[in-house]
Amino acid sequence: MPVHVELVGGIAAVITSLCWLPQMLKIMRDRETAGISLVTNAFFAAGVFLWLIYGVMLGAWPVIMANVVTLAFILAIVGLKLRYG
Amino acid sequence: MPVHVELVGGIAAVITSLCWLPQMLKIMRDRETAGISLVTNAFFAAGVFLWLIYGVMLGAWPVIMANVVTLAFILAIVGLKLRYG
Repeated sequence: MPVHVELVGGIAAVITSLCWLPQMLKIMRDRETAGISLVTNAFFAAGVFLWLIYGVMLGAWPVIMANVVTLAFILAIVGLKLRYG
Repeated sequence: MPVHVELVGGIAAVITSLCWLPQMLKIMRDRETAGISLVTNAFFAAGVFLWLIYGVMLGAWPVIMANVVTLAFILAIVGLKLRYG
C-alpha cells in the first residue's frame, strides 16, 4: 500500500479513536447525558467490538489498537449514560 | 480474504454506520443536545471523512459506503447540535 494511503488511514484511525475523549470528559464534568442515545452507543460499542475481532482475524495491529482505544471510551460513555440517565 | 472474516467486517460496517440513526432521531424528537460534545462530533466527522478518502484511494466500496452513511448522520448530528446548543 502506498505510504500516503497508509498515512491517511493512520490519521483517520487516530482521530476517530481519540475524538471520544472530550465526550467522556464532558459527561464526567457536567453529569449531563439526557440527550445522548443509549441505543446508539450500545450498538456502536458492539460494532466497534466486531471491528476489533476483524482486526484480530487479519492480524492488523492498527485496526486492533484503534478499536481497543475506541471501545474503552465508548464503554465508559455507556457506563456514564447508565449512571446519569 | 476468508468469507467469515469479510462477513464480520461487513456486519461491523453496517452496525457502526446505522447506529447513528437513533441518535439523530432522538435529537430531532427531544431537541436536547446539552450533553453532546460538539468537539467530539466535529472531530469524528473529520475522521470519518478521512476514512472515506482512504476508501476512495483503495477503491474499497464497502469502506466508501459505510463512511458516506456515517458521515451523513454525523453531519446531521453536528447541525442539530449547532441548532439546539
